[in-house]
Amino acid sequence: MALRLGEIVAALGGELHGDEGQIIERLAPLAAAGPEALAFLSHPKYIKELAASGAACVIVSPAMREAAAARGAFIATPDPYLYFAHLTQLWRSRHAPPEGPRIHPSAVIDPSAQIADTARIGALCVVERGARIGEHTVLKSRVTVSEDCVIGARCLLHPGVVIGADGFGLAPHAGAWVKIEQLGAVRIGDDVEIGANTCIDRGALDDTVIEDGVKLDNLIQIGHNVHVGRNTAMAGCVGVAGSARIGAGCTLGGGAIVLGHLELADGVHVSAASVVTRSILKPGQYTGMFPIDDNAAWEKNAATLRHLHGLRERLRALERATPARSQPNTP
Amino acid sequence: MALRLGEIVAALGGELHGDEGQIIERLAPLAAAGPEALAFLSHPKYIKELAASGAACVIVSPAMREAAAARGAFIATPDPYLYFAHLTQLWRSRHAPPEGPRIHPSAVIDPSAQIADTARIGALCVVERGARIGEHTVLKSRVTVSEDCVIGARCLLHPGVVIGADGFGLAPHAGAWVKIEQLGAVRIGDDVEIGANTCIDRGALDDTVIEDGVKLDNLIQIGHNVHVGRNTAMAGCVGVAGSARIGAGCTLGGGAIVLGHLELADGVHVSAASVVTRSILKPGQYTGMFPIDDNAAWEKNAATLRHLHGLRERLRALERATPARSQPNTP
Amino acid sequence: MALRLGEIVAALGGELHGDEGQIIERLAPLAAAGPEALAFLSHPKYIKELAASGAACVIVSPAMREAAAARGAFIATPDPYLYFAHLTQLWRSRHAPPEGPRIHPSAVIDPSAQIADTARIGALCVVERGARIGEHTVLKSRVTVSEDCVIGARCLLHPGVVIGADGFGLAPHAGAWVKIEQLGAVRIGDDVEIGANTCIDRGALDDTVIEDGVKLDNLIQIGHNVHVGRNTAMAGCVGVAGSARIGAGCTLGGGAIVLGHLELADGVHVSAASVVTRSILKPGQYTGMFPIDDNAAWEKNAATLRHLHGLRERLRALERATPARSQPNTP
Repeated sequence: MALRLGEIVAALGGELHGDEGQIIERLAPLAAAGPEALAFLSHPKYIKELAASGAACVIVSPAMREAAAARGAFIATPDPYLYFAHLTQLWRSRHAPPEGPRIHPSAVIDPSAQIADTARIGALCVVERGARIGEHTVLKSRVTVSEDCVIGARCLLHPGVVIGADGFGLAPHAGAWVKIEQLGAVRIGDDVEIGANTCIDRGALDDTVIEDGVKLDNLIQIGHNVHVGRNTAMAGCVGVAGSARIGAGCTLGGGAIVLGHLELADGVHVSAASVVTRSILKPGQYTGMFPIDDNAAWEKNAATLRHLHGLRERLRALERATPARSQPNTP
Repeated sequence: MALRLGEIVAALGGELHGDEGQIIERLAPLAAAGPEALAFLSHPKYIKELAASGAACVIVSPAMREAAAARGAFIATPDPYLYFAHLTQLWRSRHAPPEGPRIHPSAVIDPSAQIADTARIGALCVVERGARIGEHTVLKSRVTVSEDCVIGARCLLHPGVVIGADGFGLAPHAGAWVKIEQLGAVRIGDDVEIGANTCIDRGALDDTVIEDGVKLDNLIQIGHNVHVGRNTAMAGCVGVAGSARIGAGCTLGGGAIVLGHLELADGVHVSAASVVTRSILKPGQYTGMFPIDDNAAWEKNAATLRHLHGLRERLRALERATPARSQPNTP
Repeated sequence: MALRLGEIVAALGGELHGDEGQIIERLAPLAAAGPEALAFLSHPKYIKELAASGAACVIVSPAMREAAAARGAFIATPDPYLYFAHLTQLWRSRHAPPEGPRIHPSAVIDPSAQIADTARIGALCVVERGARIGEHTVLKSRVTVSEDCVIGARCLLHPGVVIGADGFGLAPHAGAWVKIEQLGAVRIGDDVEIGANTCIDRGALDDTVIEDGVKLDNLIQIGHNVHVGRNTAMAGCVGVAGSARIGAGCTLGGGAIVLGHLELADGVHVSAASVVTRSILKPGQYTGMFPIDDNAAWEKNAATLRHLHGLRERLRALERATPARSQPNTP
């Protein structure tokens, strides 16, 4: 696997200072790159690694031109990280092995499902009755798309994904549960990526909706009738309960939980492991997570926490008991 | 897909005020229902939506009769939500497409497994040696039921479910781990629903047991030798560690964790994302979760939390230092 | 299924006091063991159960010899729990049914994949191009090993495992996300066990690495370029974000989260449901988890927690206001 620097800038642009004929055999992190590798400097804080790097060439921002030139060959481009992303795509496309069959013979596809001509369905996938798979969408191995669910164009579904299992709908009756049949489906837009073993449930009456450009990591649970806005991204192990409505351009950190029927405005960012218990209508970063500590310290603080409300009451009593006139440091 | 109002009340009961011949083409939420739709009012707080709804007919409780009559056709029934649940089942049964094969030819079923005559096994399922699947139970696609595991009657297992993988049993030895073979199995009662990609591990010596009527959402982990009592329900992403014993009629919110070897009495309700670290022997609602806040506020409070025990000590010192006689507001 | 006590000590050692010809029909927990069962006493605190046990024979430590002899037959061995682990392995090996085909005909294996002669590949597995599976490794049903990923010897991968799905790599651009192709793979050492539906993502440039002897429970997410050291064990539902480096001999409790790019030293133990937000360079037990309480108490304390920083400020003000001379109990 190799590309010349000249081929790279011809395909991706950027201002090359160095030998167009230089052969690049791999992409590598700055610190680990050898003389056959192309690396990138995403942030000025890694500038020390730049000087020390043995890379054949480094992708840098224009502001880093001088430091890069002092080291050797470089490509200057306004957004090195974005350039690197495009470079990984170029690398993959140039080195992709011959593709297997468009629809793997082991996949189980209902005759009524509509699979676009350019879509690819991997080994041991299941596409049920009435489902639709858009152009250039790829289902890796062992993906289930249940009946009547719709996947847009250029989506990528990783192994083990389950689209359109029943939402968790139950009516209590006489101490037991009566199933509410889930009559909706799932509608997924274009350019959506869904990580391994992630589940998106079908709606109860209306559909669960994932808009264009949404990116979901692995082992995420999306409940019935959730609506996820454009370009929102969620890290692994997130859970979103039924009927939550999440805006566009949001990010949810790993293991975050969003309770049901809540609304998150566009541009809300939830930190990892935080639990959203109320609607958040203002963009911003939100967090709720017990800080980790050595176990002994945690035990003391956690035990005290269970009396926190009482501490406040005692503080109030003290405040009442403390005459203002004796507070020498108070302005 | 359509049903007449007359057919619905003939099948499900309820007191119809309106035209028996009225054709219903879909079930819909109250706010979104058009003149072809049947909706329901589950709670008096939505009464404003009732008046504004364009539904052909609305299911209401007897107390709402007058308000419903002012709007148009209605069905009165003591528990509209339960009626709606039964209605979704009627709707599904009346509109179900012709069923595929009872056992999908792509499923891999050991000759010694016992599959009830009325059970259905979906595409690409695996049912191992000695497993038993009860009457009217349905395995959707890509479900694994491991050797000797037993599934009762009328159960529904969604795609990707794994029943009977090994429990996590390890004995430490010389810095490494020695596997404890898991010699038990999993026994699942009747009327159990298990969500997509949920896992229930086999027992170490005895069996892991899920009693009748339990409902598990997606991506739940049930460890070895856990016992889950009748009609308990768990939302997505719950984890229950080994040998926990959970009573009947409990609910666990999404992302809740139950540590190993604990006992939860009947009727214990654990809030989402809460961690059960001790047995809970009294019914009730239990919660433990850091409240979410904007990140800056969280940072301040979390940093202070790490000194909470010290704050209590300081408060105590102040209380000792503050003469009771100077507390004017104290009774 | 049966073994004589004599066969057991011949295979596993230990000092038998009792009849070598005694037939053992099952292994059982101490409290539940009947006259056909062999049980073990792992900890002196269960000594009451020892006296009451109806087991045919009990495995005990030498210190328990006297108490065990008072009851009946026993096997003395320095580490009864370890002995029990080996016994479960003996039991399984003696009672294993005839094995099915080494590579199940329903598995989809790329011709370029290298499967060791003694490896076993279960039903409906997928092993992609260039992947390698080591000697005596077992893939249970429905496991995916993606292209170029390497699994060592004597590993056990449970149903639904996904090795080598794409890491979650995205560059932001103009409000959307540009995919970073994941060009690395996954390298898994020897003697690794991976639980049902667990996912280990492939690296972005370098490989994700799981060292020898690592044990992962079910539904765990391991991000790209994570490095997990020898003999580290993780309980169910753990999430480890990209590029985290976890040492050897660590344990992570169920539902714990480790954020990206962090380092955990050897011998770090993280309690269940705790979130690691900073590198931990010192061995020890670490915890961060809101203590569970009845809901009403939690509500009060959680509400107060949101003002904790302010409470500290008020406490400081009081401390300033309280003259040291009036503190009668201060030394």
